[in-house]
Amino acid sequence: MSSPVKVALLGCGTVGGEVARILTEQAGELAARAGAPVELVGIAVRRPDKHPELPAELLTADAAALVSSPDVDVVVELIGGIEPTRDWLLTALKSGKSVVTANKALLAEHSAELSQAADASGADLYFEAAVAGAIPLLRPLRESLAGDRITRVMGIVNGTTNFILSAMDSTGAGYAEALDEATRLGYAEADPTADVDGYDAASKAAILASLAFHTRVTAADVHREGIGGVTASDIAAARLLGRTVKLLAICERVTAEDGTESVSARVHPVMIPRAHQLAGVGGAFNAVYVEADAAGELMFYGQGAGGAPTASAVLGDLVAVARNRVGGGRGPRESAHAALPVRPMGQTPTRYHVSLDVADRPGVLAQVAQVFAAHDVSIAAVRQRDRLSTASLVIVTHSAPDAALGSTVDEIAKMDVVREVVSVMRVEGEDY
Amino acid sequence: MSSPVKVALLGCGTVGGEVARILTEQAGELAARAGAPVELVGIAVRRPDKHPELPAELLTADAAALVSSPDVDVVVELIGGIEPTRDWLLTALKSGKSVVTANKALLAEHSAELSQAADASGADLYFEAAVAGAIPLLRPLRESLAGDRITRVMGIVNGTTNFILSAMDSTGAGYAEALDEATRLGYAEADPTADVDGYDAASKAAILASLAFHTRVTAADVHREGIGGVTASDIAAARLLGRTVKLLAICERVTAEDGTESVSARVHPVMIPRAHQLAGVGGAFNAVYVEADAAGELMFYGQGAGGAPTASAVLGDLVAVARNRVGGGRGPRESAHAALPVRPMGQTPTRYHVSLDVADRPGVLAQVAQVFAAHDVSIAAVRQRDRLSTASLVIVTHSAPDAALGSTVDEIAKMDVVREVVSVMRVEGEDY
Repeated sequence: MSSPVKVALLGCGTVGGEVARILTEQAGELAARAGAPVELVGIAVRRPDKHPELPAELLTADAAALVSSPDVDVVVELIGGIEPTRDWLLTALKSGKSVVTANKALLAEHSAELSQAADASGADLYFEAAVAGAIPLLRPLRESLAGDRITRVMGIVNGTTNFILSAMDSTGAGYAEALDEATRLGYAEADPTADVDGYDAASKAAILASLAFHTRVTAADVHREGIGGVTASDIAAARLLGRTVKLLAICERVTAEDGTESVSARVHPVMIPRAHQLAGVGGAFNAVYVEADAAGELMFYGQGAGGAPTASAVLGDLVAVARNRVGGGRGPRESAHAALPVRPMGQTPTRYHVSLDVADRPGVLAQVAQVFAAHDVSIAAVRQRDRLSTASLVIVTHSAPDAALGSTVDEIAKMDVVREVVSVMRVEGEDY
Repeated sequence: MSSPVKVALLGCGTVGGEVARILTEQAGELAARAGAPVELVGIAVRRPDKHPELPAELLTADAAALVSSPDVDVVVELIGGIEPTRDWLLTALKSGKSVVTANKALLAEHSAELSQAADASGADLYFEAAVAGAIPLLRPLRESLAGDRITRVMGIVNGTTNFILSAMDSTGAGYAEALDEATRLGYAEADPTADVDGYDAASKAAILASLAFHTRVTAADVHREGIGGVTASDIAAARLLGRTVKLLAICERVTAEDGTESVSARVHPVMIPRAHQLAGVGGAFNAVYVEADAAGELMFYGQGAGGAPTASAVLGDLVAVARNRVGGGRGPRESAHAALPVRPMGQTPTRYHVSLDVADRPGVLAQVAQVFAAHDVSIAAVRQRDRLSTASLVIVTHSAPDAALGSTVDEIAKMDVVREVVSVMRVEGEDY
């Protein structure tokens, strides 16, 4: 067996603790798989005195010194945040140390710089744990589907928002109530902004779109809407249509009429049919659909967060990196050769659902339909229902540029015959 | 860009034709991903004159000569069968040529010999297409989960039998009728033996168990029962329990009371709850569950067969192999270090469902229950229903060694009070 691969761990919270535990408990097994012992030589934490469970001789508060140590081959980064983490990882990569990280925010913003540093020194940069926790998703995109042409990646990549939306759907609770419940049960953080406002999902969408389409997409390129605006009325409206509401990350390859290609990446609430496989993904689980020309439709499902599941992904990467070191090879490099432009959300084709309370008199549908037509938006389905003095009008459109749909809704909201816009939401999945 | 990676294709049927087409049509894209042009330099087919759609200068009937040509770097084998394919692939690997193959039967029997040849020369041996078609499954098992401890792999890995069982479930048809329909629609081959008798699934189970548990399992180690014995009564009995019947490949790590580990691999019809995600997998689709200590439950879903989906997996491997050649590295070697014994089916813990028509008089349940107890089999649930002069008795057991369950059923079948054994089938999934 080869000489040990020496690992520095940055951060030792829920995930790091699991990584350290498994590295110790499964040392023999991991060594057999990697072809060399995988040895933990240092752990950087903010407060070493707060970690009596870890071997004192491994602990340090000086992450920068640990990263620069000549005694380290691989840096596993589980601290998160942009700075100073970015600086540490660049230092590691530039000196030829491989990096395994779960830091989606950093990757979604600085993957170009990081992968250039990795390429320059021949080091590996692996980050399976950054998206969808334990689910093997990035390696399939990067490697298994490298001979195919991916057209779409769509999925539930944030467990907190999925838990909240599942709760709203099953109990009829409003957003605030469901968020409180999620916080109480530990599914939402004290400051839930990154999750509920879609920042976390947008970072993941940027990473997925980059890998799937061999191009460079950053978090800033991703259209982002959180779930704060989802109301009990939206959920009820979805239910009437046999649908449920999910926060989806959607990355698409869009081909214009003249054949030019672009990519679109977006995160927003979506109504999907209850029969859709993503509709059945409850609680804190993640699931991602991938569509490719030759492979057709694929789905990946599993736990998207949590200490042990995320540690599984980190350790898979760590074994791969160690194996590459032992074998003298290197994992796949970043492949951004396609360099596709990112299509703005306004020009991205989407479909809308609109529920309206309208005056209960003849001709209303004709007037409303006229507004859609004026914006060149084609209607796929209409349902009308009478109430006491108002009528409920539900419209689902065909695909149209998102901006045209938005202006249609704006104009409809101002119509005299429209008493209230009850729910507006994008839809995915065929069933109309 | 590096000099071309030269590819020989053995076999050009449905899958090979797609591989050749994509290699040509997507040449630029594949070269960008591989880091070198991936060039088709020869295609071996039985009858070159039968392939006017392929460039004549590439065609040959002499596979052995093509494999031995110094002008070939990678051999893609899509012919199938054991001999002479095995010989050709050994020749290729021994001379340092990498091999990409979809040949599950060959791998399930001779993977030890093939991977030793690959290791000796430093060549790559990739076979993602051998199991579950387009679904990226082997790479996740081999690489993404290399840092985890897999305890179970269970799935639908044969589309033909899944189509037949789905049809029996939805139409109430008997086995023969559903098989006819599958043949008529092209889902079953003229000689369906390999599929319906479970040989195909058993080969896949052997490959899955080997990768998941880092040990060596051959097709002969896999307990195999096909679907020929599944009756409309079985399907109806499953329906009464809120279940459906699927042919599953089940690979498990079994830990004995003294802590010694073994593996079990089996293919047989199983009743699973309709709410189980595998129950919703219809038609010719495949889906595989993986359970691991840290990752928890994962699922992979997609098309398990067909020209384009299988070609997607082949091309993913081909790009990986080409990338390894360009980078001077090598993919993961076979890892059979755990060398776990295979547990015979009789000692493998399973659970049974038994439906009986019994005499309608008091004390019958007590007599039947006594037989289970005598074989040390614990009963999980019982349902009784009166009919005209007989009663229906449905029993589901707890987990017990398969042999004990089998002998229990044999003894019960001989009892005077038992008019007919209506259905006997193993069950998986909790809902009793």
